Amino acid sequence: MLLKTPYLLFLGDAVDPLAAKVAQGIKDWRPEYCVGQYRQDGCNADMHIDDLTIAQAIERGAKTLVVGVANRGGVISESWISVFEEALNAGMDIASGLHNLLIDEPRLKTLAEKNGRALIDVRVPQHDYPIANGIKRTGKRCLAVGTDCSVGKMYTALALEQSLKKMGVKSTFRATGQTGILITGNGVPLDAVVADFMAGSVEWLTPDNDADHWDLIEGQGSLFHASYSGVTLALIHGGAPDALVLCHEPTREHMRGLPGYSLPTLEQLRDTALNLAQVVNPDCKVTGISVNTAALNDKEATDLLADIESRMGLPTVDPFRHSADRLAEALA
Amino acid sequence: MLLKTPYLLFLGDAVDPLAAKVAQGIKDWRPEYCVGQYRQDGCNADMHIDDLTIAQAIERGAKTLVVGVANRGGVISESWISVFEEALNAGMDIASGLHNLLIDEPRLKTLAEKNGRALIDVRVPQHDYPIANGIKRTGKRCLAVGTDCSVGKMYTALALEQSLKKMGVKSTFRATGQTGILITGNGVPLDAVVADFMAGSVEWLTPDNDADHWDLIEGQGSLFHASYSGVTLALIHGGAPDALVLCHEPTREHMRGLPGYSLPTLEQLRDTALNLAQVVNPDCKVTGISVNTAALNDKEATDLLADIESRMGLPTVDPFRHSADRLAEALA
Repeated sequence: MLLKTPYLLFLGDAVDPLAAKVAQGIKDWRPEYCVGQYRQDGCNADMHIDDLTIAQAIERGAKTLVVGVANRGGVISESWISVFEEALNAGMDIASGLHNLLIDEPRLKTLAEKNGRALIDVRVPQHDYPIANGIKRTGKRCLAVGTDCSVGKMYTALALEQSLKKMGVKSTFRATGQTGILITGNGVPLDAVVADFMAGSVEWLTPDNDADHWDLIEGQGSLFHASYSGVTLALIHGGAPDALVLCHEPTREHMRGLPGYSLPTLEQLRDTALNLAQVVNPDCKVTGISVNTAALNDKEATDLLADIESRMGLPTVDPFRHSADRLAEALA
Repeated sequence: MLLKTPYLLFLGDAVDPLAAKVAQGIKDWRPEYCVGQYRQDGCNADMHIDDLTIAQAIERGAKTLVVGVANRGGVISESWISVFEEALNAGMDIASGLHNLLIDEPRLKTLAEKNGRALIDVRVPQHDYPIANGIKRTGKRCLAVGTDCSVGKMYTALALEQSLKKMGVKSTFRATGQTGILITGNGVPLDAVVADFMAGSVEWLTPDNDADHWDLIEGQGSLFHASYSGVTLALIHGGAPDALVLCHEPTREHMRGLPGYSLPTLEQLRDTALNLAQVVNPDCKVTGISVNTAALNDKEATDLLADIESRMGLPTVDPFRHSADRLAEALA
């Protein structure tokens, strides 16, 4: 593990619930990691867990203060520093996915060194990764691939893990982005890895395992996104998935951040991703479809899912609305 | 330009001609950059240009001493250091693509700072690159893509540049690897760029240009190589090529460094690369095929090229044996 558990969730002075979405993700997916929350004056987010002081969190065994809040520009605000100093003095590590790094704050760096505590910027790779060797590993792997960025790939993989565990199937979510790393305490910040080592870092993240164990690998980017497609292909070839789940957001008008680029169809995504995945794993299959229907009402969502399911011939769900159970059954 | 020209080629104590292949590349493709060569006792390579002392090279205007030799492990050997010190004192920069970095040698670092000279490790990105924006640029671009790594993609792009210039067509070779950067004095060391910025670095390298100008982009890796495919896809989407040239080495038994992985066919490469390239440039076409026939005799080579040409319906040449003129004509 990169991060020591359990966590104290730092919400700071979050301007609204969205600003605390990292904390919300941890609370939703790893509630057992959370001993409580730390909120400052003016905080407009609430995880509905106990509000604790640093001293109380230490009493409950907290090992890491996790920065679960973001503000404009990803900076570390001045009002947070004294809380972080108190946490370091009390014996906690601090973990953050902010753009401004903890290790670049001299006051925190000095205090962490003095106390023998760790400052963990999950945006920065914490290992030297190997170059991928392409050798087949034992165990099963499932990767979420999207028609675009930010269509629910992380959510889908976390929901799949939950459904598989409920069914008694061994499984592990494998984080490849900073939010996923903070949620699970481990992972690879793939977008920050040097090009030559991308696929190798994914092999490292998903090593040999029991034959009936599933790694649920968090997707990144999209094969159809001009800015990030290389990251996605490294994930497909490093992950060597046995199963692909296609992820889609049906109301998006163009590729995220790329006006003028329309989204591919699910058929295009299926054919392109499968063709490339079979380069390293000829047995790879597309096993299901995950649609983010947040922008639709219940009737629209149900109709759309049924349409796609009949068109594509694959279990099609919105894991947020209806759980990922049917996607998990298709894997098991 | 990243490197100031002209160069003094440093061959050191190269054990054989292969050890000086970087110097050979510069001599072959940019002879006008070379004022001479510097050789030490025991050197078994020769570019057949004037042997110069540091003082003589300065007299002829040399601005950069380029390390054109590699030894086992890519280390900077002790016997080279005093020559590099002399060059720095005489007013030259030093450029190197070795694994051991010039800037990690304290004696060189101190002396370069004192003299206001640059140590340029072309293996290390020398710019902050943007995230790709996918916006169409003016001018034309051609990218070499391979069935595998090390099949002659750099050679093909350099030969294409030469043929186009001979025909009077404006063109620029765009280096994406360390040898190409040393040859041309500019470029992006793509395999060392952080994942999120790969495609953006290629957009940066191939900016808006005259409508009738061709960028000849050096390829990297292969879409079918499990270790490096992500780098290749970033190059395809960042480069937004109008033309793809397929590169192949017909005698290779498995993907380089990956026993157990067979090479794709030229048809598979054509279909996969074109499908992905058309995501950013719907007008992209495959315009020719470059085959490295070094392992074949003349008759075998000619027969193979004719076979492939009739099978694929595309101009097919070995640019080393027969020049890239027919590939260039297909572009122009």
